[in-house]
Amino acid sequence: MGARGEMRAEIIAVGTELLLGQIVNTNAQYISTKLAEIGIDVMFHSVVGDNRERLVSVVKTAQKRSDIVIFTGGLGPTKDDLTKETIASCIGKILMENEEAMGKIESYFVRRGIPMTENNRRQAQVIENCQVLPNDVGMAPGMAVHAEGVHYILLPGPPKELNPMFDHYAIPYLLSLISDHQVVFSKVLRFFGIGESALEELLMDMIDNQSNPTIAPLAKESEVTIRLTAKAKTVDEANRLIEGVESVIKERAGQFIYGYNDDSLHSVVVETLRNRGLTLSLAESCTGGLISRMITAVPGASSIYPGGLITYSDKVKTNLLGVTEATISQHGAISRETALEMAQNARQLLNTDLGMSITGVAGPESVEGKPVGLVYIGLSSAGGDQVFEVKLTGPREMIQIRAAKYALFYLRQAVIN
Amino acid sequence: MGARGEMRAEIIAVGTELLLGQIVNTNAQYISTKLAEIGIDVMFHSVVGDNRERLVSVVKTAQKRSDIVIFTGGLGPTKDDLTKETIASCIGKILMENEEAMGKIESYFVRRGIPMTENNRRQAQVIENCQVLPNDVGMAPGMAVHAEGVHYILLPGPPKELNPMFDHYAIPYLLSLISDHQVVFSKVLRFFGIGESALEELLMDMIDNQSNPTIAPLAKESEVTIRLTAKAKTVDEANRLIEGVESVIKERAGQFIYGYNDDSLHSVVVETLRNRGLTLSLAESCTGGLISRMITAVPGASSIYPGGLITYSDKVKTNLLGVTEATISQHGAISRETALEMAQNARQLLNTDLGMSITGVAGPESVEGKPVGLVYIGLSSAGGDQVFEVKLTGPREMIQIRAAKYALFYLRQAVIN
Repeated sequence: MGARGEMRAEIIAVGTELLLGQIVNTNAQYISTKLAEIGIDVMFHSVVGDNRERLVSVVKTAQKRSDIVIFTGGLGPTKDDLTKETIASCIGKILMENEEAMGKIESYFVRRGIPMTENNRRQAQVIENCQVLPNDVGMAPGMAVHAEGVHYILLPGPPKELNPMFDHYAIPYLLSLISDHQVVFSKVLRFFGIGESALEELLMDMIDNQSNPTIAPLAKESEVTIRLTAKAKTVDEANRLIEGVESVIKERAGQFIYGYNDDSLHSVVVETLRNRGLTLSLAESCTGGLISRMITAVPGASSIYPGGLITYSDKVKTNLLGVTEATISQHGAISRETALEMAQNARQLLNTDLGMSITGVAGPESVEGKPVGLVYIGLSSAGGDQVFEVKLTGPREMIQIRAAKYALFYLRQAVIN
Repeated sequence: MGARGEMRAEIIAVGTELLLGQIVNTNAQYISTKLAEIGIDVMFHSVVGDNRERLVSVVKTAQKRSDIVIFTGGLGPTKDDLTKETIASCIGKILMENEEAMGKIESYFVRRGIPMTENNRRQAQVIENCQVLPNDVGMAPGMAVHAEGVHYILLPGPPKELNPMFDHYAIPYLLSLISDHQVVFSKVLRFFGIGESALEELLMDMIDNQSNPTIAPLAKESEVTIRLTAKAKTVDEANRLIEGVESVIKERAGQFIYGYNDDSLHSVVVETLRNRGLTLSLAESCTGGLISRMITAVPGASSIYPGGLITYSDKVKTNLLGVTEATISQHGAISRETALEMAQNARQLLNTDLGMSITGVAGPESVEGKPVGLVYIGLSSAGGDQVFEVKLTGPREMIQIRAAKYALFYLRQAVIN
């Protein structure tokens, strides 16, 4: 029992299927996200198979280093479900049948009209003196039990059972352990067009001297995010702490920030165009429909995006999109000139405020003697036309994704400036 | 050094972002799957934050219980990347600059035309006397190093870098450790158009009585796979065991099998069309470019796919694609009739052997009084025209993905029949 910052938790998943790679440990992620929100620090995740001896060894390590140990999986009816027996014996307790859980299991089998097998009875057993965490979706109840300064929480493996049980019953249990009422609040800043190490150089002194809020950079999918996490007595105070640091980051690297929290480049583009009442058409070559696909993944994209063309071959560029043959023969399909005509013609053909084009070499082979990764992005509007050149590296799909993101980034920049 | 079955491995992921729940530990799954294939048992997964002291404690536990310890993450250029320094100190070794890695990093910055920052030099350091595992995609090299009976393998965190490094360099290293020659061989059968439980019902007796090969069904991303894994003295023998079971599965559910192992619906479609010398054009409405994007993700797609149209609005369907206004006003944009004209006109406009179209309601709102999830897929060829109707459930993006997969599945069926 202590201040939030002092509570250390770890998550132990029990299940051989995880060790075989048959499933991925999304439960650990789910629980970690929720614990971060209430300010409980997660120090370790572990996965162990359906094996008593190895599970015991993991429990013993956990007891020494954590205040809260959360188990997922191994609560089912079959022989290899041994979590609760093992935890009970590790903390010197026995299992007892829980009436409510037993009633639920019996009525399930009555409802389905199928006979209940003996091993289903095992699901109704819980650790003595535990707090039962009801399972509103399935049969195996969860448990919370305290022994020698450590809180043990046992949750079922299937996410559709675990998630509601965790939200509705485990979170209130955990909140009751926390004596003070500090708030933990996070804000994610999303960057594009700058690498992780370049961004860190710009913010080096801040990262070195961080305390509250913490400053955590992360590179993922060709983007960089910085998560600012503040602890304070109130949300307002946490927000003020974050705003202070955020404003300094904006001074130094604001031109690379495109959004916050759950934003994506495409959601930001759709929102920006919608707010300004602008429509967009696309002519994609090397990205083959990816930009269009990203935009139309956003609900309500139809208000800004009537459609586009995938002009993968030169013939389609000339016949369907009307790029002049002379442009392609003189400069190549991968050129500023072709990108420009593609954007202009898309805008005209689809009668939109903005026309954007993209043509380049996604690889694996070079084209027209031009290197893999060379990409031209055209942008046409009533205010004038522009072409951007980018040079990308990586395998084909990464080049396509990064090219699409650059196009969306430049589009947003052009519209907001 | 021992028989395969005696080799015990564990996987340690280093990264606070995992403990915060910002990302899920897919690397552990990837590596576990691959180790299972070569018959190395994975006993534990762990995740630890970017913290030297806690990483040391995890390494010490691992040294006592495992023959092979695989680390993921923490090889990047920033301060919190401390995996290699920590492992080196745990096993009494130092770090040294690797010339090849350094050359690669320098040339990357020269190629991109941006200045190299000092912290990038750190990425070129490796543990003395290690075997460098080259990074063909990124900058941080991997390492394999042996000390006091334990093999340590260090891999970068980003899956795009880790996966090829593991396949091409770590797997051969691991195979060289195994003294006996039992072969573990897997084959994945890929199904579409049938649910996991329906497929399991068809194969119930086989799943109940499985031994060698094992039969492991898995539902993922609207598809179902069955992994057959055989152990035998030779690859031929393992293959024969797999073929026996596979042929029974094919008798019962062969019409739902579209591919094997790393195949995807789009890679299979590109290959099938290429083998038959057929070209395809697309007119996409509700999928907004997704099918086109899937096809163009396949290297060499240009030989079968010259291009397509995204006809998201009705106006673009009529003006650009030439669907008659009467068809849309009588039947609606989401109708068999519109799907048919879209496919026919795409085929004609783009002068291809096949024209495929898709129009439907991706949601979240219904359109034209038609329910979310209703999708029509049109297919036009010299041999005749067809329209398929599918009714899908789920959130917008899942409907778009499943609609695209149905279109690819029907396209493949039509071409091979």
